[in-house]
Amino acid sequence: MSEARESAIPNSERAALCRRYRLPEPVRVTRPTMPPLEKYHEYLETIWASKWLTNNGKLHEEFERRLAQYLGVEYVSLFCNGTIALLVALQARRINEGEVITTPFTFPATAHVLYWNRIRPVFCDIDETTLNLNPACIEHLIGPETKAIMPVHVFGTPCDIEAIQSIADRHGLDVIYDAAHAFGVRYKNRPIIEAGDLSVLSFHATKLFTSIEGGALISKTDAEKSRIDFLKNFGFADEETVIGPGINGKMNEFQAAYGLLQLDMIDDEIAHRRKLTELYREGLAQTPGIKVHQEVPDVQRNYAYFPVCVDADEYGTSRDALYDTLKEFNIFTRKYFYPLCSQFPCYTALPSADARNLPVAERVAKCVLCLPLYGTLNEDTVRTICAVVNGLCAH
Amino acid sequence: MSEARESAIPNSERAALCRRYRLPEPVRVTRPTMPPLEKYHEYLETIWASKWLTNNGKLHEEFERRLAQYLGVEYVSLFCNGTIALLVALQARRINEGEVITTPFTFPATAHVLYWNRIRPVFCDIDETTLNLNPACIEHLIGPETKAIMPVHVFGTPCDIEAIQSIADRHGLDVIYDAAHAFGVRYKNRPIIEAGDLSVLSFHATKLFTSIEGGALISKTDAEKSRIDFLKNFGFADEETVIGPGINGKMNEFQAAYGLLQLDMIDDEIAHRRKLTELYREGLAQTPGIKVHQEVPDVQRNYAYFPVCVDADEYGTSRDALYDTLKEFNIFTRKYFYPLCSQFPCYTALPSADARNLPVAERVAKCVLCLPLYGTLNEDTVRTICAVVNGLCAH
Repeated sequence: MSEARESAIPNSERAALCRRYRLPEPVRVTRPTMPPLEKYHEYLETIWASKWLTNNGKLHEEFERRLAQYLGVEYVSLFCNGTIALLVALQARRINEGEVITTPFTFPATAHVLYWNRIRPVFCDIDETTLNLNPACIEHLIGPETKAIMPVHVFGTPCDIEAIQSIADRHGLDVIYDAAHAFGVRYKNRPIIEAGDLSVLSFHATKLFTSIEGGALISKTDAEKSRIDFLKNFGFADEETVIGPGINGKMNEFQAAYGLLQLDMIDDEIAHRRKLTELYREGLAQTPGIKVHQEVPDVQRNYAYFPVCVDADEYGTSRDALYDTLKEFNIFTRKYFYPLCSQFPCYTALPSADARNLPVAERVAKCVLCLPLYGTLNEDTVRTICAVVNGLCAH
Repeated sequence: MSEARESAIPNSERAALCRRYRLPEPVRVTRPTMPPLEKYHEYLETIWASKWLTNNGKLHEEFERRLAQYLGVEYVSLFCNGTIALLVALQARRINEGEVITTPFTFPATAHVLYWNRIRPVFCDIDETTLNLNPACIEHLIGPETKAIMPVHVFGTPCDIEAIQSIADRHGLDVIYDAAHAFGVRYKNRPIIEAGDLSVLSFHATKLFTSIEGGALISKTDAEKSRIDFLKNFGFADEETVIGPGINGKMNEFQAAYGLLQLDMIDDEIAHRRKLTELYREGLAQTPGIKVHQEVPDVQRNYAYFPVCVDADEYGTSRDALYDTLKEFNIFTRKYFYPLCSQFPCYTALPSADARNLPVAERVAKCVLCLPLYGTLNEDTVRTICAVVNGLCAH
């Protein structure tokens, strides 16, 4: 433990580097790009005039419509957050027992929504390059209790949707995508959220696109959207009819107003992040032991995150040591995702959680690090971060 | 059915009444009293300055502190809505299987959170006067699978907390109060939310006190509050430790700001509602077949709702007919609560849902009606509503 946290470069050298490159203010891994407050205020005036705060208000309606348009899909249901959207996605498909195959390399919400729907997660290993579910590992995990596959487009990189769909079709399984990272991502010029049966987006404040907290569930038919909209409002189909055990998943007008303004900013946000991503790639291209994501054919990325993999041997310093040392430079990164969901006490007893079944995920979780990336991040700051990462390399 | 919806007074008489008393604008059952927009804007300026939108921000912290102070309790955990707070309450106590005894005369959320926690609801009949769980009916429903009692302080009227606690203690059961209606209610000069093991408040826009959407879970120890706060944030105890299958139940800064401003207004809101309640009581005191709630000894009410019970025989018109007819007068009431949770398709197969076991609840659900009540409701409007209800009486 203490060894893994030590940096391989001498203290004196590190101190010199720190004097030169330490950032004047803490730089976090992300920061929301705020819309103009005056414009938000205009929306508030309409809320104050209508006195309608939540429950399918006018801004909610407008946001749902404009969001569907922007995303290029027909059916969007807004939620108070992405977790409740994912929870309702399973319920909408009546997946409430048995097993669902998913990735351990994800945010806890993915596994937890299975718990809430009475489902045993079956953790499946990931692909070293995409960091997503490895289709080659899925099929031998399918058993008589399997109901669905729930892949995650990690860091916005599309899963191998064709291979996954073909497995699902062969076995009659639903596919529900956790697309929390994949806002606006396109694959072969189609929205990635068209893949599978349902997809869920997250609009949390730390996301590329945000409605303060928030999320959306993308469905494919009128009937399914209706069912989802009932379920997110306690199951009410009308004042006197409750069609099932729903929940409160409603997005309020204040969130919808924020989301509407973000729609006007999202293309710029992606463009800025793309530029910064290119700077990072350039700045770290020659760093031994730092592996960065590259562009993937047929994929229009969203540049939501800038993850790197730290090869401790090549880089001369472990990921954990780099994470700690960067704090001294006022650079706050995230071990995203570490630990794996399969390592949480509540899931570790599952047979599929055995580390021996998840060699790639285990390895990646120990080396991954997300560097700061957000639209208002300064280009020079990115150059400085690269200089620090390069300077801390022991080779 | 059609019979029940018919009004007993002649059409011509009703038309005359309508010409005289029809309200110029629709009056809904409730309407939020908005804080001054300028004051809300001031909070927004601090949010824009900090760029901190959610996850335990400064306003969240301040709201939690000031709310605890106002309510007279020590431990408050804020939530995105009351339903998720109730869902987490059960999880916080590790109640995740077996049975919980609850009332069918409540909002669907009460029963649904049991579903989400893998618990079979056991519906127990209510008391005709308080409309709350009847303690005399609880004990014979307790079996080897019973884990807890989940009573509801319906319309803010305190449950018989002493009797319930004594049953719970005798059988070693938890008591979790759905206090969604009971903001600020005191019993024997103590906050009612001190009763039982945990209590949950709702701050939905339709509530007496609102944070747009929102809710709070009231606990009793440091350790319990910590556990709740972890669970509402996916189970994170720190960046790398997940203590259990949590959820996203976080209240954001925009909700907290709204809640803070409501704290400044709540005493006036209650005073206004009290005044209107007295007007209603006066106006309906002589109406045959319209039963209204009276003051209860030792109870400091919050005047959140004005429910009446319509005795179709005495009043000469059924509750359903009155509800429909009032719409013609631009008076929009609510059959709150109808139908009973035990009548939802998802619960109707439970043995305890049999109507024969719930005679009082069945009767009350068919006669209850909530009349418009909110702080900005005009006194003359209340007088008009009383005149209409009196005018529609067939006796």
